[in-house]
Amino acid sequence: MDLTVYLAGQIHDDWRETVKTKAREKNLALTIVGPQTNHERSDNVGEDIIGKQPASVHKDDAASSINNFRTQVLLQKSDIVIALFGEKYKQWNTAMDASTAITMNKPTIIIRPESLVHPLKELSNKADVTVETVDQALEVLQYIYE
Amino acid sequence: MDLTVYLAGQIHDDWRETVKTKAREKNLALTIVGPQTNHERSDNVGEDIIGKQPASVHKDDAASSINNFRTQVLLQKSDIVIALFGEKYKQWNTAMDASTAITMNKPTIIIRPESLVHPLKELSNKADVTVETVDQALEVLQYIYE
Amino acid sequence: MDLTVYLAGQIHDDWRETVKTKAREKNLALTIVGPQTNHERSDNVGEDIIGKQPASVHKDDAASSINNFRTQVLLQKSDIVIALFGEKYKQWNTAMDASTAITMNKPTIIIRPESLVHPLKELSNKADVTVETVDQALEVLQYIYE
Amino acid sequence: MDLTVYLAGQIHDDWRETVKTKAREKNLALTIVGPQTNHERSDNVGEDIIGKQPASVHKDDAASSINNFRTQVLLQKSDIVIALFGEKYKQWNTAMDASTAITMNKPTIIIRPESLVHPLKELSNKADVTVETVDQALEVLQYIYE
Amino acid sequence: MDLTVYLAGQIHDDWRETVKTKAREKNLALTIVGPQTNHERSDNVGEDIIGKQPASVHKDDAASSINNFRTQVLLQKSDIVIALFGEKYKQWNTAMDASTAITMNKPTIIIRPESLVHPLKELSNKADVTVETVDQALEVLQYIYE
Amino acid sequence: MDLTVYLAGQIHDDWRETVKTKAREKNLALTIVGPQTNHERSDNVGEDIIGKQPASVHKDDAASSINNFRTQVLLQKSDIVIALFGEKYKQWNTAMDASTAITMNKPTIIIRPESLVHPLKELSNKADVTVETVDQALEVLQYIYE
Amino acid sequence: MDLTVYLAGQIHDDWRETVKTKAREKNLALTIVGPQTNHERSDNVGEDIIGKQPASVHKDDAASSINNFRTQVLLQKSDIVIALFGEKYKQWNTAMDASTAITMNKPTIIIRPESLVHPLKELSNKADVTVETVDQALEVLQYIYE
Amino acid sequence: MDLTVYLAGQIHDDWRETVKTKAREKNLALTIVGPQTNHERSDNVGEDIIGKQPASVHKDDAASSINNFRTQVLLQKSDIVIALFGEKYKQWNTAMDASTAITMNKPTIIIRPESLVHPLKELSNKADVTVETVDQALEVLQYIYE
Repeated sequence: MDLTVYLAGQIHDDWRETVKTKAREKNLALTIVGPQTNHERSDNVGEDIIGKQPASVHKDDAASSINNFRTQVLLQKSDIVIALFGEKYKQWNTAMDASTAITMNKPTIIIRPESLVHPLKELSNKADVTVETVDQALEVLQYIYE
Repeated sequence: MDLTVYLAGQIHDDWRETVKTKAREKNLALTIVGPQTNHERSDNVGEDIIGKQPASVHKDDAASSINNFRTQVLLQKSDIVIALFGEKYKQWNTAMDASTAITMNKPTIIIRPESLVHPLKELSNKADVTVETVDQALEVLQYIYE
Repeated sequence: MDLTVYLAGQIHDDWRETVKTKAREKNLALTIVGPQTNHERSDNVGEDIIGKQPASVHKDDAASSINNFRTQVLLQKSDIVIALFGEKYKQWNTAMDASTAITMNKPTIIIRPESLVHPLKELSNKADVTVETVDQALEVLQYIYE
Repeated sequence: MDLTVYLAGQIHDDWRETVKTKAREKNLALTIVGPQTNHERSDNVGEDIIGKQPASVHKDDAASSINNFRTQVLLQKSDIVIALFGEKYKQWNTAMDASTAITMNKPTIIIRPESLVHPLKELSNKADVTVETVDQALEVLQYIYE
Repeated sequence: MDLTVYLAGQIHDDWRETVKTKAREKNLALTIVGPQTNHERSDNVGEDIIGKQPASVHKDDAASSINNFRTQVLLQKSDIVIALFGEKYKQWNTAMDASTAITMNKPTIIIRPESLVHPLKELSNKADVTVETVDQALEVLQYIYE
Repeated sequence: MDLTVYLAGQIHDDWRETVKTKAREKNLALTIVGPQTNHERSDNVGEDIIGKQPASVHKDDAASSINNFRTQVLLQKSDIVIALFGEKYKQWNTAMDASTAITMNKPTIIIRPESLVHPLKELSNKADVTVETVDQALEVLQYIYE
Repeated sequence: MDLTVYLAGQIHDDWRETVKTKAREKNLALTIVGPQTNHERSDNVGEDIIGKQPASVHKDDAASSINNFRTQVLLQKSDIVIALFGEKYKQWNTAMDASTAITMNKPTIIIRPESLVHPLKELSNKADVTVETVDQALEVLQYIYE
Repeated sequence: MDLTVYLAGQIHDDWRETVKTKAREKNLALTIVGPQTNHERSDNVGEDIIGKQPASVHKDDAASSINNFRTQVLLQKSDIVIALFGEKYKQWNTAMDASTAITMNKPTIIIRPESLVHPLKELSNKADVTVETVDQALEVLQYIYE
C-alpha cells in the first residue's frame, strides 16, 4: 500500500532528508512531500512571480498566497501528516499545518522536544500520535506495514 | 506526483495550448483538462444530442445541462483549477467555475488583466492565488514541484 | 417555519426593499439579509477600517476581504439564496454568490431578464429555479408556505 | 440576527471584556464565548477533575483534553471566530484555534500587531480578514449589521 | 425537544392530516411539513409562475424545478422524514425523496402496504425503519419521547 | 482520463452490453459497472448466502442487504451514474439509485422514454442530463473526451 | 448557551437521573436526552409496533431498527455525548454510540471504571475526555460555563 | 476493479489468512489490510516506540494512540470493512471499528455467531450486511464481481 506523507514543520535542518533516507532503508512505500524548504525562496516567491510589491506586508501576502496554495495541493493528496516542532522560532506555520490536517481528518503525528510539552499540550492532545524524535515517527509509520 | 488541472475560462484564444506546451517544457507531471473550447459545438450540443428545441431558451437549457455535466465530471477529478478572465465578454461561466471550485476546496488560481482588478476583487480575494499572466500561473504550478 | 433568505445581486435599485415589503404583505415568515448595498461604503470599507492602502489593488483587496467575510457569515445562516442579475455591469459577485450558494447546497433562485438567457445559461441550469422578475421569485417563496 | 462569536487567543489582558462592552455599546446582537481565561485553572483543570497525575506531561495531557473539549463544543456553536495574537508567548493555541476554525469554514478574523505581520503571513492569508486592533475587529462585526 | 418531520409520498388521501391530528393527540412536539398536496397546483405551478410553456415537457420541467426547490428547502429543515407508498401510481417522487433523505442522513421511516414488500425491498432495507401503517409510524415517533 | 460509470436501471434487456460495445467502438476510457443483472440471483442472493428464511419478507430483506452493499461499493467508486427507466415495472431501485447518486454529487444522466416525461419530471429535473436513448447517453459521455 | 447532551450507555442504574439532578443544582443550561432505559420496552419495541415476528433474530432486528432510529434522531440534535461503561455486560451499544458520536465530531466524554482502562484504551484515546465517575463528567460540563 | 478491504475484529485465530487465501482462490482483486494481530506487540507498541511509561494507564494510552493512528490510515484507504465478532472477550475495538466505518459510509459486513445475535442487534442493524461465517462474507465480496 503506497502512502503519501506531508512533512510539515521547521526548515532549518535536513530532517526531511533523514525521513526519506530512513524510509528507503526500511523499504516503506512512502511518497514524501512538504513545503518549500529554501527559506529565502519561500519568502520571495510572491515577488519572484507577481513582481515587486509596495511594502513588506504586501510582499508577505503575495508570498503566503503561493505557499498556502502549494501546501493545500499537497495536503489534500496526503494520507498522513507529520509536523515537527523545534526549539527555536514561532513556528506558527507548523501549528497551522498540523491543525489544518487534524481538522481535515488526516492522521497526524507531532514530533516535539520535551521542552515543548507544555506549550504544545493542546495541539499534541488533538494529534493522533506525539513523539519526540524523527526516528520514533518513522517507527510509527513502519508499524502500519507490520 | 501527478496532478490534474482544470483550465476554466475564456475560449477565444489558444491559452490552453500554451499551458500544455509550457507544462511539457517544464516537465511538470500535469494532466490538463477543461471545457469544450469549440464555441459553436458548446452552444449546439444540446440540440446535437437531444434534437431540435422549440425556442432558444430551451436550446440553451439543453446545451447547458450537458456542458455542466462535463464540467462537473472534470472538476471532481481535478486537483487544481485555473480560471482565466479576459477583457471581453461577460464570462459568467468563468466566475461560476472558479467559485464552484473554491467552494469545493479545490486550490484555485485566477488569471486576470490589471484592468479587471476592481470588478473581480471579491472573487480574487477568495481564490488561493491571483496572477496576471498564464506564465505566472505556470510558475505557481512549477513551485509545487520545487 | 421561519426561513432566512440571502438576496445576492445588483445594488443599483431598491429591489431588496420590494422583496421585504411584498414578503410582509404576503405574511411570509422570512428574515431577509444581503450584501452591503451602499456601493461607496462597500468599495471603501477596507480603508475605512484598516486605513489608507498604497494602491487601488490593495484598497480593493482590503475591502473585498471584509465584504467576503460578511457574505460568508450571512450565506451560512441562510436557508435560501436569491440572485438577481440586471442588464448592466459585469456582476461577477452575483455569479460568485449564486455559484457558491449552489455548491453549498443552498436552494437558489436566479432572477434574470430575457436578454441574459444565453450568457447565463449554465448558471441558470445549475440553480434550482430561474425566473424573470422579483414578483415571480416571491411567488416561488410563497409556494413553500402553501 | 443573533450571531455567536468565539474569541480565541491570548488570555493575558482583558480584551474579551473590551469586545463585550463595545458590542453592547454598538447594540450588536452577539453572544461572546471563548476559552478558560484563568491561566492557572486552565493548566490545572485535568488534575482538578481527574486527580493527581504522575508527571507534568500527564498533568498537561489531562488538562488539554478538557480544554480541547470545551473549545470544540463552543467552536461548533459559533458563527464567527476572532483570534488575537499578542507580542509575547508562543500562542500555539491561538494558531491552532484559528486554523481549526478556518478549516471548519467558520468566518475568521485575525488580530495581530504590525510586528507579527511576517511570522503570521500564511495564517493571515488563510483567514477571511486580518486587522491590527480589537476596535477594527468590532468594526468588521458591525459591518455585518449595516 | 421540538422535531420537524417531512411527510413525503402520495397525495391522494388525507394521511398527512391524520398524522397531524394524532401527533397533537399524543402531545408530540412536532412541526409537520411536506410537498404541495394539491395535485393540479403541483402540476401547474411552473406555468402559474413563469408563464405558458411551448410543450408539456417544458411545462413539466418548469413545475418540477419549483417543486424540487420547495422540497429541498423543507427537507433541509427536517429532523425526520416519513415516506408513504400506496398501492397505486408509480410514486417515483416518493422513492426519490426517501432516497435523498437517507443519503442526507435524515432518519427515515417508510410506510408501505404488505403488497409492496418485494418491489420496495432495497429502499426499505436502506431506510431506518419500515412499517405498514400511519399509526405504526406515529408510534415510532412517540417512542422518541418516551 | 479513465472514468468509471455505474449503469443503474432495468435489467430486462441487454442495454448494458450495448453501452460497453459502443464505448469500446468510440474508444472511450470507461470502466462500466452496475447491479446484478440476473434477476433470479438478485432475488435469491440472501438465501443463497445466509440460508433459508422463514418468510418472503425476510428473504427479501436478506437479499436486499447484499444488493445494497454491492451497489454502495460500486457507486462510491464511480465518477458518473447513468440510470435507465423503461416503460414497464415500478423500477423503484432505479429511482433510488439515481436519487442516491445525485445526492452524493455524482454527475448523473437519466435515460427515459417520452412516455415517462411526466411521472419522472422531478427526478429528471434534479439529474444533470436527461435523454431518451442509450445512444444519446453515449454521446454525452463522448462529449467529455472531445 | 443551551447545550443538548446525549447520555449513552448502560441502563441498569439511574445514573441519568443523577446527571439531571446535579446539572440542575449547578444551574447548567442542559437538555438531557438518551436511549430508552426500560430494557424490556427496548427489547420488545419492534414487536410492540410492527407485530409478532417469526423468530428472535427478526424480533431483535425489528426492535433494533426503531432503537437506532431514536438514537440517530437524538444524537444529531446533541452538542455533546457522554458514554458510561459499567463493569457488567458487553455494552456494545455503548461502544457503538460513542464511536458513532466521535466519528460525527460530537465532543464526547467517556466514563469508565479503572477496571476497564485496558479493554477500552483505544476508544478512550479517541474520545475527547475520559473520566471515572459521573461527578467528574459533570465537572467537565460545568467547565464549559466557567 | 481493485478493492481494499479492512478486516476488523478479533486477533485470536488466523481468520484473516483464511480470507486472503480464499480471496486468491476466487480470483477477487482485493487488497486485504487490518490491525496489528500480534497481541503483545499491539499492547506494547507505545512503550516500544516512546519508552517506558509511569503506569499501565499511560502505557495503554501510548499504545492506543499508535494503534488508532494505524487503523485510521488503513480505514480511510479502504473501500469495504468486515468486522468479525467471536464468542470471547469484550471486543470493544471491533464494535468501535465497525461503528466508525459505518459512520464514515464505508460499506460494512459484520460476521458474528448466532449466540451474539441479541447483544449485537443494534450494530448489526446499522451494518450493511450481517453473516455468521467468514465463508459467507467472502461470498458477499464475490457477489460484487459477478
